[in-house]
Amino acid sequence: MNAIDHQFMQLALRQAALGQNSAAPNPSVGCVLVKNGHVVGAGFSQPAGGGVVKGAPGAHAEVMALSVAGDLARGATAYVTLEPCSHHGRTPPCADALLKAGVVRVVAALTDPNPLVAGQGLARLAAAGLEVSSGLLHAVALEHHKGFISRMVRARPWLTVKMGASLDGRTALANGQSQWITGPAARSDVQKLRARSCAMLTGVGTVLADDPQLTVREFAVERQPLRVVVDSLLRTPPGAKLFNQAGVLIVGAQENAAKRQALESAGAEVLILADAHGRVDLAALLNELGRRGCNQVTAEAGGVLVGALFEAALVDEMLLYQAPVIIGDMAKGMAMLDLNDLNHKLQAKVVERRLVGDDLRLTLRFTDAGEFYVG
Amino acid sequence: MNAIDHQFMQLALRQAALGQNSAAPNPSVGCVLVKNGHVVGAGFSQPAGGGVVKGAPGAHAEVMALSVAGDLARGATAYVTLEPCSHHGRTPPCADALLKAGVVRVVAALTDPNPLVAGQGLARLAAAGLEVSSGLLHAVALEHHKGFISRMVRARPWLTVKMGASLDGRTALANGQSQWITGPAARSDVQKLRARSCAMLTGVGTVLADDPQLTVREFAVERQPLRVVVDSLLRTPPGAKLFNQAGVLIVGAQENAAKRQALESAGAEVLILADAHGRVDLAALLNELGRRGCNQVTAEAGGVLVGALFEAALVDEMLLYQAPVIIGDMAKGMAMLDLNDLNHKLQAKVVERRLVGDDLRLTLRFTDAGEFYVG
Repeated sequence: MNAIDHQFMQLALRQAALGQNSAAPNPSVGCVLVKNGHVVGAGFSQPAGGGVVKGAPGAHAEVMALSVAGDLARGATAYVTLEPCSHHGRTPPCADALLKAGVVRVVAALTDPNPLVAGQGLARLAAAGLEVSSGLLHAVALEHHKGFISRMVRARPWLTVKMGASLDGRTALANGQSQWITGPAARSDVQKLRARSCAMLTGVGTVLADDPQLTVREFAVERQPLRVVVDSLLRTPPGAKLFNQAGVLIVGAQENAAKRQALESAGAEVLILADAHGRVDLAALLNELGRRGCNQVTAEAGGVLVGALFEAALVDEMLLYQAPVIIGDMAKGMAMLDLNDLNHKLQAKVVERRLVGDDLRLTLRFTDAGEFYVG
Repeated sequence: MNAIDHQFMQLALRQAALGQNSAAPNPSVGCVLVKNGHVVGAGFSQPAGGGVVKGAPGAHAEVMALSVAGDLARGATAYVTLEPCSHHGRTPPCADALLKAGVVRVVAALTDPNPLVAGQGLARLAAAGLEVSSGLLHAVALEHHKGFISRMVRARPWLTVKMGASLDGRTALANGQSQWITGPAARSDVQKLRARSCAMLTGVGTVLADDPQLTVREFAVERQPLRVVVDSLLRTPPGAKLFNQAGVLIVGAQENAAKRQALESAGAEVLILADAHGRVDLAALLNELGRRGCNQVTAEAGGVLVGALFEAALVDEMLLYQAPVIIGDMAKGMAMLDLNDLNHKLQAKVVERRLVGDDLRLTLRFTDAGEFYVG
């Protein structure tokens, strides 16, 4: 691999980013076709319900790139962020399409984490005489595809917890007042995070206190995230603003026909998923969201649900917007945890610190995608 | 003022920094003497008990610079971070010394905040025919001299609160365990802060939980800070490690002859300073430390004392060492405050964010020296 290969893979990753808000349940792959040092085609995973490739809704990145390149694909090199698929899913296998178009070399950043096809796409192409390789810009691709990889390998989405807090770790006053701890730039930034998320997770406490919508409203999106409320006793008010838009899943721990009926009438789906202690089984819930094709889920919740997610070891990442204020110890904290030994503290890896308006945004990792996928 | 003047004032400020750990109760002034574009003398405020100028313990910066320059001072320009004094204090007036040495121009960064002499030093020099000015690099000098200025103008020291905390604002577990939340680099950094401080302030809760010494141990210092314990009921154990070294002030709110006797036998001074509610009067305590010549005081304390200092509006600055860990809501918080309206939150100005080892050090301002002194 040389510097030219790096550059074209970077272009493929930039293509991949274009699909990050709309490709799910597919991975948002990027593909660039290069011939004689010139880009002859580029593409990214299209939304399941449509996209720019005529007659092919949900077209894969390779198919879009080939449709752009046309005859120029013959003799080209394909740079792809993920191994081309080799199986008939919603669309025919991309490996076959590349072969048929006369591509002679395929460079992938990662092998496909889908256990059904891992390695088979590249193997098929190699068997047909193409030059194939994988691993170029591996770490960047792993980061980009961590949601899809998580779903494939761990059978659950990548979970990011978003919090807005003061310097002393307070998210709301004891009386519930919580609006505007962080500034408008942070709130705007959160809209982008919601747009990337297949589902938004919150607790009934937050619904009752803040009545949030948890949707993307500052810009147009292909799809709004599914809104999921952890609500053991089905206390979500049927008049909550969540129901202003379709796509709400209420997850209880105890059946209640009357409340279910009211929530379903408001447009919600109700699911009962109890653990052995009679609380909502959070691990099972994330598995369920994985089954529904969610690659990335974001929790915007209070300390009770966030603490429970940490205790269940389900938090992969936290985006913490820290306002330069101090609120004091009587206010509400970030995570309801009861440690009795500092050796059990949750150690984060700080991936990024960035100013967003007057607030500091910390990207904290509790999991590294490399821990569950070598790719 | 031109670029050359700026450079020499910067040199004077660098001199001033050399005295910051030892000059108190004097301000740590810097002085540079320049003739024909060359530095002919430089000096900084010497420790009250000694210093490099023979026969002149506690020599002022000007006196040290003049002693270096000797005859070369005739016709020179003096750059000083603070207006030369015009009164007989522990040493004769520097204005007279500059005059006598034949200095022809004096450039000061700030006028003297000491109400006894403000403006008089420069006025005397101007009356004698010297070219005088003030205000060059004013903001930098204001920052450097904020402790002395605070004592002169507000009759109390500049107060910095140092805290080590987790991302969720926790300083210790509920069971008291608090060691090593932040890393070794942060603890080393705190030693420098202690060296700059005339006094360290803590609460009896911290003494009972952590038994700290609050001294500088990683490097040699001219003087250790006075250690001050806010201890309403005189509960400090006479065997506490604080007493390993002389210089401990225990401040109670209620007299108790037996306890006073035990503490005095351990080497402490005991002072009773009660407010109307029977608690230690923190504002009066800071006034008392000011009277004793403390320019900068640092609090290393738990949430109870820190909260009380905030409530009394006595906190000028916070140095917050933030470890990349989450500890959870059952652990101890940073500041015992009971807000019932987010409009009353304590708004900080973030002056600096710097990595110290794995921890982030935030320098937060609640006061700006410019608020109480224009200079």
